[in-house]
Amino acid sequence: MDTYGAPLRDMRFILDHLVGLDGIAALPDCEAAEPELVYSILEEADKFAAGVLAPINKSGDLQGCRLDGDRVVVPNGWQEAWDQFVAAGWLGLSLPAEYGGQGLPKALWAPVWEMWFSANLAFTMLPQLTLGQTEALEVAADDAMKALYLPRIVSGEWSCNMSLTEPQAGSDLAAVRMRAEAAEDGSYRLYGQKIFISYGDHELTDNIVHLVLARLPDAPAGIKGISLFLVPKFLVNADGSLGVRNDVRAVSLEDKMGIHGSPTCTMAYGDQGGAVGYLVGELNRGIEYMFVMMNEARFGVSLHGVALAERAYQMALRYANERSQGKVAGEAGRPIAGHPDVKRQLLAMRTRIFAMRALVYPAAAWFDHARHHPEPDVAARSRRYIDLLMPVLKAWNTETGNLVCDDAIQVFGGMGFVEETGIAQHYRDGRVTRIYEGTTGIQANDLVSRKILRENGATLRELVADIRADIAALAEMADVADVAELARHARVLANNVDDLERATDFLLAHGSTDPATVQAAAVPFLHLTGLVCAGWRVAQAARAAQSLLTASAASAGSEASATSGAPAAQGAAGGQAEDASYLRGVLALASFWFATYAPQVRAHADTVAASACVGLAPDAALWA
Amino acid sequence: MDTYGAPLRDMRFILDHLVGLDGIAALPDCEAAEPELVYSILEEADKFAAGVLAPINKSGDLQGCRLDGDRVVVPNGWQEAWDQFVAAGWLGLSLPAEYGGQGLPKALWAPVWEMWFSANLAFTMLPQLTLGQTEALEVAADDAMKALYLPRIVSGEWSCNMSLTEPQAGSDLAAVRMRAEAAEDGSYRLYGQKIFISYGDHELTDNIVHLVLARLPDAPAGIKGISLFLVPKFLVNADGSLGVRNDVRAVSLEDKMGIHGSPTCTMAYGDQGGAVGYLVGELNRGIEYMFVMMNEARFGVSLHGVALAERAYQMALRYANERSQGKVAGEAGRPIAGHPDVKRQLLAMRTRIFAMRALVYPAAAWFDHARHHPEPDVAARSRRYIDLLMPVLKAWNTETGNLVCDDAIQVFGGMGFVEETGIAQHYRDGRVTRIYEGTTGIQANDLVSRKILRENGATLRELVADIRADIAALAEMADVADVAELARHARVLANNVDDLERATDFLLAHGSTDPATVQAAAVPFLHLTGLVCAGWRVAQAARAAQSLLTASAASAGSEASATSGAPAAQGAAGGQAEDASYLRGVLALASFWFATYAPQVRAHADTVAASACVGLAPDAALWA
Repeated sequence: MDTYGAPLRDMRFILDHLVGLDGIAALPDCEAAEPELVYSILEEADKFAAGVLAPINKSGDLQGCRLDGDRVVVPNGWQEAWDQFVAAGWLGLSLPAEYGGQGLPKALWAPVWEMWFSANLAFTMLPQLTLGQTEALEVAADDAMKALYLPRIVSGEWSCNMSLTEPQAGSDLAAVRMRAEAAEDGSYRLYGQKIFISYGDHELTDNIVHLVLARLPDAPAGIKGISLFLVPKFLVNADGSLGVRNDVRAVSLEDKMGIHGSPTCTMAYGDQGGAVGYLVGELNRGIEYMFVMMNEARFGVSLHGVALAERAYQMALRYANERSQGKVAGEAGRPIAGHPDVKRQLLAMRTRIFAMRALVYPAAAWFDHARHHPEPDVAARSRRYIDLLMPVLKAWNTETGNLVCDDAIQVFGGMGFVEETGIAQHYRDGRVTRIYEGTTGIQANDLVSRKILRENGATLRELVADIRADIAALAEMADVADVAELARHARVLANNVDDLERATDFLLAHGSTDPATVQAAAVPFLHLTGLVCAGWRVAQAARAAQSLLTASAASAGSEASATSGAPAAQGAAGGQAEDASYLRGVLALASFWFATYAPQVRAHADTVAASACVGLAPDAALWA
Repeated sequence: MDTYGAPLRDMRFILDHLVGLDGIAALPDCEAAEPELVYSILEEADKFAAGVLAPINKSGDLQGCRLDGDRVVVPNGWQEAWDQFVAAGWLGLSLPAEYGGQGLPKALWAPVWEMWFSANLAFTMLPQLTLGQTEALEVAADDAMKALYLPRIVSGEWSCNMSLTEPQAGSDLAAVRMRAEAAEDGSYRLYGQKIFISYGDHELTDNIVHLVLARLPDAPAGIKGISLFLVPKFLVNADGSLGVRNDVRAVSLEDKMGIHGSPTCTMAYGDQGGAVGYLVGELNRGIEYMFVMMNEARFGVSLHGVALAERAYQMALRYANERSQGKVAGEAGRPIAGHPDVKRQLLAMRTRIFAMRALVYPAAAWFDHARHHPEPDVAARSRRYIDLLMPVLKAWNTETGNLVCDDAIQVFGGMGFVEETGIAQHYRDGRVTRIYEGTTGIQANDLVSRKILRENGATLRELVADIRADIAALAEMADVADVAELARHARVLANNVDDLERATDFLLAHGSTDPATVQAAAVPFLHLTGLVCAGWRVAQAARAAQSLLTASAASAGSEASATSGAPAAQGAAGGQAEDASYLRGVLALASFWFATYAPQVRAHADTVAASACVGLAPDAALWA
């Protein structure tokens, strides 16, 4: 019952009308991304996700991973999936051609990878981590290292992981203690332990490239003394052939609430004389390089949020249309989807998923604009927007995604709590998405301290001006099309934006005088920002849908008057009817958004404004 | 690390100042509940919960239950815990003396059972179900059945379960198909299957009493044809000795997300000729009797909400005070509890727990008033209040409890997602509380359809008048004590109550014309009601705390002027200082409530008012 099919209509609608695929294909080096090719890639990805990755998701959860001596054993089917994944070229989709990739834009990468995450998150963490490393190596490694490693990584012969966390260094990487000592040959020897290393070891690939944060004995304290090292599982000869086993191994696996198919390893370095490592880039710039992969990872995790929600929603929607219970409008034997409260839950889920997707795909396009747009102003603004909103994308999408997975359990009722149906897996798997690559609290602190306060809210003001322009456009459309509902959305969103600005003013006013209150306000402020930005995208979608409906009605009207009931016109009307029904669905999601989620903005704004209560609370308040 | 200690100060504060223990002890048949005895019972219960039940909670989760042939094997330690539990008389705490109970009031029962649920929910489901049955048997069984069964149940020799659900009959008990046929001796033979039966089988007690819903072949269709049968695991001779094994057995156990220590059984009846059952009460009144146990069970589940939240909070608070990470106010090596965002999370949890507890204990006292109050008006009003709010207590407390358990994971960060720390168990265990004994959707429908619409909102108006009187009292106190913060709380709560009334007006206005919209509004309305009622109790607590602080300051002032610095006065001041610090903590929780949770009321009210969007959404809106 837990099958998966990609939500292609949503994906295309958002790509066409919110991202603007034509605009992406018009960017230098993005010519390949012309819409027909993009659509066909999406269809192929759907087949791969549904046919290869989804079927081993539940079995992977049940089977999990285990440590057998010093071998990490992953679930059955993982090897075949990896082999097919890299053989089909999916790993290289967005990577540069010079290393064997296809150089397609991030705006396409986002929906394709959303599918992998939906189909099998635990599996897909391996390619995701591998991809993140390539970005870091591209930025930081010297040419020799790139030439030796990148082609073998992009081809899928070797894979990568990200080795940051230590028992005393979780959110605070300044506390990293892993020791690196210079060897005579210019390499280093690493000693210490890393924890929570996803795919820290496995035998899916011939070699594993660990990118490891460590510090030299004489390095400065704190984050300015941390360097990035490349530590291969097997040493690599100059010709790329594999040498001896390096001194790094998995010593235990975590027993986790979810993503059982992804081995979470404790890795020991240097127990037998020192793990051979190679400095990546320059000494003491490790945190800077790490943030290259971290930002990739965070963007990927924002997709985890929507992806798991989509998967859980598909199951819940199917269940609600199969299960009958009680009377629906007085009739027995009809599916529970007809109960108003179940329909409300389904709409709640679907609306949130639509909003998350509408938030994240255009953000993916910002990456493309930042990298490729010929006008430096546009490119720079896109970079500012993605920097500003990265913590919001990561945290708001995963917070929201968790809520959707939770709703899905509720639709299943008692069957949601038993593992048999499979819905519980998505709930369990998803719980980590609000934690890894920086908790929601860490993201909120990043948003408020590093993104808003540091630049006095400048980029946020810029974004707000964009949103206000879109509100004006929506209000105008509502007026022209005479749709009171859309005019109401415009008013509600305008109030939401006012609340966002007031909350921002609050942060700016207290930033230097009362930093503790600002930090206590950070998470509510992040929720507020997420809701406003997602609401903006939902409003854009509603405007696009209304615009298409209006145009279609006008054209149907003129066709009808021209052909007056001839079969051809009926055919055209039939085709339009299907589109129109989807478009009216989008309008219904917008109505649900502004009925249910937009009102939460004011609540968060009130909470931000009252955040001083946190600092004022005596410690005794915490003890019953 | 996962130890438990009962929050005795909170429990006492709420019993003393919100419930009014003196008033309970003044009720007929409640004389035993004088405060000093109550406090000592709470202390004993704390020792039992911490010493006997809590230590086997995690091992029970890890070990789970299994079916060995047709024996259900529960975790190690369960037998010893059960034996000690019943030997200490805890099962009979609230039961009538004539069957061996101690007849203590529900207002005491609530904190005591909160402790059991905190310490070990999976274990405590057995005594809870057993207790619920005794209430049903008391109401519905004839004297002979009571005399034969109740003393042996109250003594813990035998235990009970509640056998309602069938594959096609979950939320909709009208669909029950279990067949009962009259036998010549006046008993019945039962045939069919029940699912999701907690403690459907086990060997902790000599016998198991199944209370089973079934229907006679010629019974009317729907809920009016369902009868309640008592089906013992071993037949019972007239002298109470055990006879042959009955034809009912566990055929499988569910693999669940949580409460692994509670066996969830599929029970087969009549595979070998028919399970012998005895009619309880009258034919075709089974649903009515079942609701006696169901209401008990729902009230108990409202305590599950606060209990698991308390347990998870204690762990999170301890972790946040042991773990250090990053710099707190510029200093390294200090616990994360000092980070403003972590403190915010802890306050968020603690405030919710305080509010849940403040909501549920006075509701327990309504039971006592309903049963024992000498003034019929007071008794009747208490019954109306408990009937009105039962769905809110059950659903809002479990929804809120789940959010607290979720926050606790977040405080643990990565360690929250691994099972080793134990925090994940409370999150997994708690997820079912929003499902069993009626999902949140079912509760909301009950609230709106059966409690509000059926009586045109009369009891809710009555409750609102009580709340408004308390708001006036709080405002007056704020004025007298000159505390602006309390005056602000009073204003916010008054606005909240206005929102509740407007939302109620909306339901009443649409109840007959647009029932689907009213049903779509039910869950947001339930959240709104829960927030308003909990906020009312928080405001009462704040008023009590301020009143005590004001009185204490006045008395300290007069003492100080009388004894001017003598050691005795210092001693008194020291004693007061501890109390005052707790009381100021209560005020801080109230401030957090009105900063963070009260603002959500308006959002839910807006959603209620816009609920027509659910019905208006075309089905196509649900399909991507």
